Amino acid sequence: MSARASNNIPPSLLRIWQQEEEASKAERAEQGRKADMTSTRAIVCRDTIDNGGWEMEDVQVREPGDGELLVEMAATGVCHTDALIGSLPDGAAPIAFYPRVLGHEGSGYVKKVGKGVKVAQPGDPVLLSFTFCTQCELCKAGHHSHCEIFNELNFGPHKVFSRASKSGEQADIDGAFFGQSSFAKLSIVKECSVVNAKDLVKSKQELQLFAPLGCGIQTGTGTVLNAAKATKEDVILILGLGGVGLSAVMGAKIAGCRKIIGLDRVESRLQLAKELGATDVIDGSKLGDKSLVDTIKDVAGSGGPAIAVDTTGAPPLIKAGLESIQNRGKYVQVGTAPFEFNLEVNMMSFMMSGKQIIGAIEGQAYPPEFVPKMVQWYREGRFPIDKLMKLMPAEDFKQALHEMHQGSTIKPILTWS
Amino acid sequence: MSARASNNIPPSLLRIWQQEEEASKAERAEQGRKADMTSTRAIVCRDTIDNGGWEMEDVQVREPGDGELLVEMAATGVCHTDALIGSLPDGAAPIAFYPRVLGHEGSGYVKKVGKGVKVAQPGDPVLLSFTFCTQCELCKAGHHSHCEIFNELNFGPHKVFSRASKSGEQADIDGAFFGQSSFAKLSIVKECSVVNAKDLVKSKQELQLFAPLGCGIQTGTGTVLNAAKATKEDVILILGLGGVGLSAVMGAKIAGCRKIIGLDRVESRLQLAKELGATDVIDGSKLGDKSLVDTIKDVAGSGGPAIAVDTTGAPPLIKAGLESIQNRGKYVQVGTAPFEFNLEVNMMSFMMSGKQIIGAIEGQAYPPEFVPKMVQWYREGRFPIDKLMKLMPAEDFKQALHEMHQGSTIKPILTWS
Repeated sequence: MSARASNNIPPSLLRIWQQEEEASKAERAEQGRKADMTSTRAIVCRDTIDNGGWEMEDVQVREPGDGELLVEMAATGVCHTDALIGSLPDGAAPIAFYPRVLGHEGSGYVKKVGKGVKVAQPGDPVLLSFTFCTQCELCKAGHHSHCEIFNELNFGPHKVFSRASKSGEQADIDGAFFGQSSFAKLSIVKECSVVNAKDLVKSKQELQLFAPLGCGIQTGTGTVLNAAKATKEDVILILGLGGVGLSAVMGAKIAGCRKIIGLDRVESRLQLAKELGATDVIDGSKLGDKSLVDTIKDVAGSGGPAIAVDTTGAPPLIKAGLESIQNRGKYVQVGTAPFEFNLEVNMMSFMMSGKQIIGAIEGQAYPPEFVPKMVQWYREGRFPIDKLMKLMPAEDFKQALHEMHQGSTIKPILTWS
Repeated sequence: MSARASNNIPPSLLRIWQQEEEASKAERAEQGRKADMTSTRAIVCRDTIDNGGWEMEDVQVREPGDGELLVEMAATGVCHTDALIGSLPDGAAPIAFYPRVLGHEGSGYVKKVGKGVKVAQPGDPVLLSFTFCTQCELCKAGHHSHCEIFNELNFGPHKVFSRASKSGEQADIDGAFFGQSSFAKLSIVKECSVVNAKDLVKSKQELQLFAPLGCGIQTGTGTVLNAAKATKEDVILILGLGGVGLSAVMGAKIAGCRKIIGLDRVESRLQLAKELGATDVIDGSKLGDKSLVDTIKDVAGSGGPAIAVDTTGAPPLIKAGLESIQNRGKYVQVGTAPFEFNLEVNMMSFMMSGKQIIGAIEGQAYPPEFVPKMVQWYREGRFPIDKLMKLMPAEDFKQALHEMHQGSTIKPILTWS
């Protein structure tokens, strides 16, 4: 079953697809197919990672339409969400379909702009983030990261790339993942995904370093500052110290939290967390006789942390995180739990505890405001994101994925040449 | 099994009991038993309501100890929590034990004060609320309603009353329920439970009318204002229109919520909700073919309410409330769910939604600050609590319970003469 054949597709997404298809047809009729295409390279997913379905390919990218930009990538961060989506069997969920181009932590230079684009002009350096509709109640209220059609816009299929099949016909490859599909040298980017960086970056090297600001870094830091609203009074626990978790540690340091506890099972990550501001670390692989909850409560004091942020999505850590926080504490879910996992909350004791459970993605941040803040903190020496990064040629994406999963590299950044 | 024999008793409660027993012994030795006791009347629970275990009895009340006051009640509101606790079989939970005196919405006049009491002097009118420890991190942070030993202090056994058995010996009857056990003409009240009302009330009639401010009214109104932090931008849904739910409607009106939706199955309550400020009501008994969630979403618009407050504890309403709120919406649990009920939350979709689940009791209010606010709103004509009340002689407590359960009376107030 392909996603398009699914009965679960929301009407709003169907409308978008129909509009895109109609627009695409009209455009083709007007300009002729050949003139619309530019050759480029992209990491194309034709099946899951485990099935060996990801390969660098020569593809064609179409011209930017209304509200779109053609961007030449300088770099793209690799995130667990890419690996997660690209590990789903075709049709397993509405967001699982192939062939497609992933990548959602892009940075680069604008090559062309479509009609009506105001955010940037050709030549401008840009940092890319998620996209949103601008029209729904949530976007209007400033809650762009929870836009009513976020899933459709960021994860749905959108015609962007193509490649000639053996019979000579162009076969579509979906793009616009998170409005950008930046696992490509050239890609079509939605205007909402663009933060103009012409006043933010000093060099191409900085543009490459900043590539993940608009997703992984923003998610960790924004969750602590925007969703949990941490203050210097708070004891905070960060479960999982990958890119998002370590960014949460940096966010907690900026908030001035009086105790910052990091938990992971990889020694090098625990050490890095300390360098970035963790006051205490817990090695989950060395708990001994004590339970995880008791260990957390002992380290936290005060009846448990005031805030717990789970960046792992692992059910045992989710349960321990919620249980260990103090009364009136906030538990924030940021890590992607297994699709079928339901947390059981005893509502009587939950009510008595006065706790909060908060869902958050993208750090509940508005990128055009939050990305410049992060750049400013970096310049002030309070946001040493370079300690998380490793730049690697885009061709080495399989090695990058391997190092990320293994934990030896926190945030691989693929560079495009 | 009595609660004292339970293995589940927290050490903090055991310490309190031991201290009380030692203090009690010392006091008895010093003063002699007889001089410590005053005759009074109280609704004594010796078994569950259903077993006919509640009766008005002649009992003895002890003298106030350190930090305690002897209060002569003018009135006591009846709340579903009294009925709930007094329906638990002996030993079913650490908070289930007999004989005891319930009642936690008291108002009256101070007769005597124990050592160190500063909040009021003999003769002062007082409004009573929950109690707390003042010493834990949560109390110090101003979160008194979620004090670390809230359960022990408010629901645990405390020696207050007694009655001569057939053999002539005095047999203990527990008191200090919510620090007050105000289902008694005379009772011992903890200092933390007292709001001095000498500058708040003009007459004994007002003191009687205001009796439930410190629990049911505060819970509904405080939840909307303090826990959900409702604003005029918000569409709010109140599930259940009893005393707490209708107080939540009044709170939403004070917050200026742009749409206030009340849901119940009793027509008279829906009408009353409209009088108090509900802009829309949903009769849960007349949904027709449409699901409850769809009905709520249709009435709310904007993709669902921004806030839902459940005052019922009914699992189907809890599930519908959480499901129906818009992305980034807040769901607040105030109603007491069945002890064993676990809400299943799919963490993946919850994360994407950006929703919040919040537990709250007592409206997360600090009574010495919140009770005067409510009195002020009443005087300004913005808080017509009298529409909820029905005054009845304390002797008619069974009729009061019946009318409350049936829905014909929202808030019965027992008056003591």
